[in-house]
Amino acid sequence: MKPELHPTTEILAPLLGVWRGEGQGEYPTIEPFSYGEEVTFSHVGKPFLAYAQRTWSLADGAPLHGESGYWRPLDGGRIEVVLAHPFGAAEVLVGTVAGVAIRLVSQQVATTPSAKRIDGSERDLDVEGDTLRYVVRMAAVGQPLRHHLAGALRRVT
Amino acid sequence: MKPELHPTTEILAPLLGVWRGEGQGEYPTIEPFSYGEEVTFSHVGKPFLAYAQRTWSLADGAPLHGESGYWRPLDGGRIEVVLAHPFGAAEVLVGTVAGVAIRLVSQQVATTPSAKRIDGSERDLDVEGDTLRYVVRMAAVGQPLRHHLAGALRRVT
Repeated sequence: MKPELHPTTEILAPLLGVWRGEGQGEYPTIEPFSYGEEVTFSHVGKPFLAYAQRTWSLADGAPLHGESGYWRPLDGGRIEVVLAHPFGAAEVLVGTVAGVAIRLVSQQVATTPSAKRIDGSERDLDVEGDTLRYVVRMAAVGQPLRHHLAGALRRVT
Repeated sequence: MKPELHPTTEILAPLLGVWRGEGQGEYPTIEPFSYGEEVTFSHVGKPFLAYAQRTWSLADGAPLHGESGYWRPLDGGRIEVVLAHPFGAAEVLVGTVAGVAIRLVSQQVATTPSAKRIDGSERDLDVEGDTLRYVVRMAAVGQPLRHHLAGALRRVT
């Protein structure tokens, strides 16, 4: 039996589902690249959405990145997000939800001893019907906060 | 096509699969409780395992907890783990893998503004064939590190 959506997560209902599409990445320390991407937002009736993301090479389908975590809307249009990254980072972001526009700024990034240095990130997500667009800015490996990723996904379920 | 296991993750191969079972929880601030649990360790051929866990009430199947993240074995039997917790915490743990005994100690716990205070945790996992046993000790809400969870899971796939 599918649980009912928790009332505090109704503000994030437009995110629920599986999304697929493509994105482009760039950073001063790497070559620009494109990728395929799948994002899933799901819920179990509790006051958060579970989030999972993975990306792959458009050339050969090889896995590139992934991340997982939880999105916690609060009252007053505030939101908190916790993310685990396979490169060895655990991130706390805070931000706002206004209509279908979500703005997140990382507040803390805990990294493992072997991980590259990540100082923080910002994420903008915008949903228009069955299209989810996002950009990610990142401060890492000594670089100041700057554009890193942009993607557009279509809802597939 | 199933990717080959990355060589650095071979030490964690006994964890791969889906595990189901039950556990018991206790903490000075709450009533003792039992729960059903499912744990999944999977891989995409990269140097980490993806990890997802969820627990539910044995009485009515209602979801209780969940967590997700990545397990990164290093050389020399060392391991790093990053976890996201839906109650608003992002955790970095470090530890050792010796045979099928894994010992983890949290090194950093980043919490969201609305989360309860979590100071750290320790986890012991032991795999014997198709049985995975674990205990979790936790320091939280002002309590020193102490026993919190114990569970035994059977491999189902």
